Amino acid sequence: MGAESVWSVDPRTGERRGDGAVAVASGAAAVDAAVRAAHAALPALADRARRAALLRAAAERLHAEGPALIAAADAETALGTARLTGELARTTFQLRYFADLVDAAAEPGGFLDVRRDGADPTLTPPRPELYRVKVPLGVVGVFAASNFPFAFSVPGGDTASALAAGCPVVVKAHPDHPETSERVATALRAAAVEVGLPAGTIGLLHGFEAGPELVRHPLLTGVGFTGSPRGGRALFDVAAARPRPIPFHGELGSVNPVLVTAAALAGPGSAEQLAGALAGSFTLGMGQFCTKPGLVLLPAGEAGDAFEKALADAAAQVPAGVLLDPRMREAFLDGFAVRAGLAEVRTLAPAGPAPGPEAPLAVRPGVLSVPAASALRGSHEALLEECFGPATVLVRYADPVEADAILSRLDGCLTATLHTPATDPDAPAHLAALARFAGRVLFGGWPTGVAVADAMHHGGPYPASTSTATSVGATAVDRWLRPVSFQTVPEALLPR
Amino acid sequence: MGAESVWSVDPRTGERRGDGAVAVASGAAAVDAAVRAAHAALPALADRARRAALLRAAAERLHAEGPALIAAADAETALGTARLTGELARTTFQLRYFADLVDAAAEPGGFLDVRRDGADPTLTPPRPELYRVKVPLGVVGVFAASNFPFAFSVPGGDTASALAAGCPVVVKAHPDHPETSERVATALRAAAVEVGLPAGTIGLLHGFEAGPELVRHPLLTGVGFTGSPRGGRALFDVAAARPRPIPFHGELGSVNPVLVTAAALAGPGSAEQLAGALAGSFTLGMGQFCTKPGLVLLPAGEAGDAFEKALADAAAQVPAGVLLDPRMREAFLDGFAVRAGLAEVRTLAPAGPAPGPEAPLAVRPGVLSVPAASALRGSHEALLEECFGPATVLVRYADPVEADAILSRLDGCLTATLHTPATDPDAPAHLAALARFAGRVLFGGWPTGVAVADAMHHGGPYPASTSTATSVGATAVDRWLRPVSFQTVPEALLPR
Repeated sequence: MGAESVWSVDPRTGERRGDGAVAVASGAAAVDAAVRAAHAALPALADRARRAALLRAAAERLHAEGPALIAAADAETALGTARLTGELARTTFQLRYFADLVDAAAEPGGFLDVRRDGADPTLTPPRPELYRVKVPLGVVGVFAASNFPFAFSVPGGDTASALAAGCPVVVKAHPDHPETSERVATALRAAAVEVGLPAGTIGLLHGFEAGPELVRHPLLTGVGFTGSPRGGRALFDVAAARPRPIPFHGELGSVNPVLVTAAALAGPGSAEQLAGALAGSFTLGMGQFCTKPGLVLLPAGEAGDAFEKALADAAAQVPAGVLLDPRMREAFLDGFAVRAGLAEVRTLAPAGPAPGPEAPLAVRPGVLSVPAASALRGSHEALLEECFGPATVLVRYADPVEADAILSRLDGCLTATLHTPATDPDAPAHLAALARFAGRVLFGGWPTGVAVADAMHHGGPYPASTSTATSVGATAVDRWLRPVSFQTVPEALLPR
Repeated sequence: MGAESVWSVDPRTGERRGDGAVAVASGAAAVDAAVRAAHAALPALADRARRAALLRAAAERLHAEGPALIAAADAETALGTARLTGELARTTFQLRYFADLVDAAAEPGGFLDVRRDGADPTLTPPRPELYRVKVPLGVVGVFAASNFPFAFSVPGGDTASALAAGCPVVVKAHPDHPETSERVATALRAAAVEVGLPAGTIGLLHGFEAGPELVRHPLLTGVGFTGSPRGGRALFDVAAARPRPIPFHGELGSVNPVLVTAAALAGPGSAEQLAGALAGSFTLGMGQFCTKPGLVLLPAGEAGDAFEKALADAAAQVPAGVLLDPRMREAFLDGFAVRAGLAEVRTLAPAGPAPGPEAPLAVRPGVLSVPAASALRGSHEALLEECFGPATVLVRYADPVEADAILSRLDGCLTATLHTPATDPDAPAHLAALARFAGRVLFGGWPTGVAVADAMHHGGPYPASTSTATSVGATAVDRWLRPVSFQTVPEALLPR
């Protein structure tokens, strides 16, 4: 039996693209070869100047090949040229951002995080001369996400931060965009060779079986994952069950609640304005964002009713669109139908098929509303969980106690958003309540944008993340480093 | 059936101490009560000034009760009054050290690790105003070690760093020193009450079953563990299998290799001097240190032979002593006998019983020697693994390739030590080879002392640690914190 073919599929039609398969599924031998080639690149990556050069050369190449990459990604994901152009720009920005961090790695505040102690024999225990620095973990496995074919895939934050740390990467491509993945990997490998690094610095694998095989490989030292709770947890379990367990940094999903207070709706037009902005946020990229606001705590009463009506109207104006793949489309429609069918749940906008001539698989966004007292019932817990795609659930609360009860039931989240006036005397308590289960707390605004920044945290309690680390921003590098202390080592022999 | 009694046992005789049991084994209800009481203390611990006061008050009380605590610990561990006096001083120093870190938590370089970004709408993606700070994880479970009844037990580094972070702790006492644990926990709880914190800030559990029960508790958010590979891995697996997995920072053992080059033995008397110092290090505390040098790579040839002879002589001079408990004694004697019985292994000093009138369970330290070529055989892998207690293995290498082959077979280690002149042109390569698998690399000296310092790293690749974190020194606090970003939150509403 030959290796299984990997095809590129058009999500607008569900049909295979092109004249032949893009690749073949990676068997155990291919996984082993990729990890060994990456491991062999480790000594060369110790040269920080070369790492920075690789990240910049990669950004250059991706930018230069932008039109072809964006065309491939749009054909495979239906995310649209405008969005993908922005995403590619974000990705090249991110590669350069990590290159800058490599340049500054040995400076104070840099990620080598150098600490020194002088000798002090008078202490208990006595202190010898110590120099602490961080070193790369080794080969890192990266699992690409479906919903960001660039920014959270082959050239994304996990890859960029691992390379910045000095770790070669082996990427498991997402099956939704194998052609894009191949093109990008080719560009990254060419960038490596261009700056004098082995092509094996970046490996690419395809196929479902390659995932656990990669995580089990004895030379793998860490994993970055962005995807579903089921797939992510299965791989987390593989990482934990190894004879030598390795860190698994997985982002598995988030419902991203928004708490709207009565005061936020008090001004004239406030409800309508907020509702319109929410419609834009929860349908952005057809709701296929890990930071999509999927649950909105809205006060009972007239102002909340006005918000509901405005949101239903705004959602009806959002054009139908195509999801990333037919399986995801089915899961979205099923998930919405299950939630809509629960007792006391009202459908304000019905998610459903909206096929057009260009896109027979298109769907419309959906909005549900439920009283908080009903959402608190065990039978209704699906309403408090992520429904991936363009849907959101309004939970109408009668008083702050009900709102708190809902928040305290939520799993860990990437984000939580508060809409209330800055003068609200309860604002600090609300912010504290949101910080208890979220990695990023917003005062106003919407969570769908994730800045690449030093002070960004993109993570949160499980299942938002399987670790306490961030997958976006400067400190993402720390995931792929471990400290080593050097004791009474002569200055000239210290590594830098 | 009533709860199982927990007795204090005299390791010098193997007999129960005192007129009655010290405590009862903690059942599921006791575990739940301790974790809930600790969880209830979380809001009070948000006050950093109070946390620092707690750590200092705890140090005061332990110091004041020193004679009684040391007497109890010596009766339960046979570690001796001198060693325990030093260990208690280390422990109170450590509590005050973490109090100082709490005072400086919000300063630059402090563990709140505050990062700020100004808004920049021209970036791709645009950057909003961001403020990132670290917050406590929640209740932390601490598993006390057998071999340090103070410094790695109830009032040790895990407890001190967790309290510094703002996390209440529930400690699982080690069965080798239940009376000491009870006395210390009482002092810590009194210190909490003294500074206005709930007594439940520190909980104490006894008994084997309490361990997994604690790790499984839904309100537990992290674990610190110091102990054996078997026990630690079992609890690691429980933490990873939870519906919501939690970080497990475990220190599971280390063989702590020492690489002695031919050049290190070249000077007159060098071999004898080094051998004498090694004898002191591997028998310190009857070899019951996680940093005990358990494997020494020694060149073949005359100088190495002189080292062997000097070490055998020095080991013979070390007084016999008692191990922490009869089970550990048996494991030590069995482990030594198994290694000594392997082909081509020579016994330079025979570990074995050496009972005297005061201590019928005393043992003598042991030294083995084996050619590297033999140690590399699969049948001999026990020689490359930790044998807890006063024993070390000399591995005689014919050339640097053999030495490297041994090093590359080792599991992750807490420490690795190099003995060679600073002028050795191969010194940088040796240091790099050692840093590949160790958390602390020493140039000269011996690994048994672990300073409490900013630049200390006490950890290393698995099984030295189950994570990339340290359990000693300033950055130990980071294990119990997670970052939260606040986006466009008005300055006055930001947490500090």
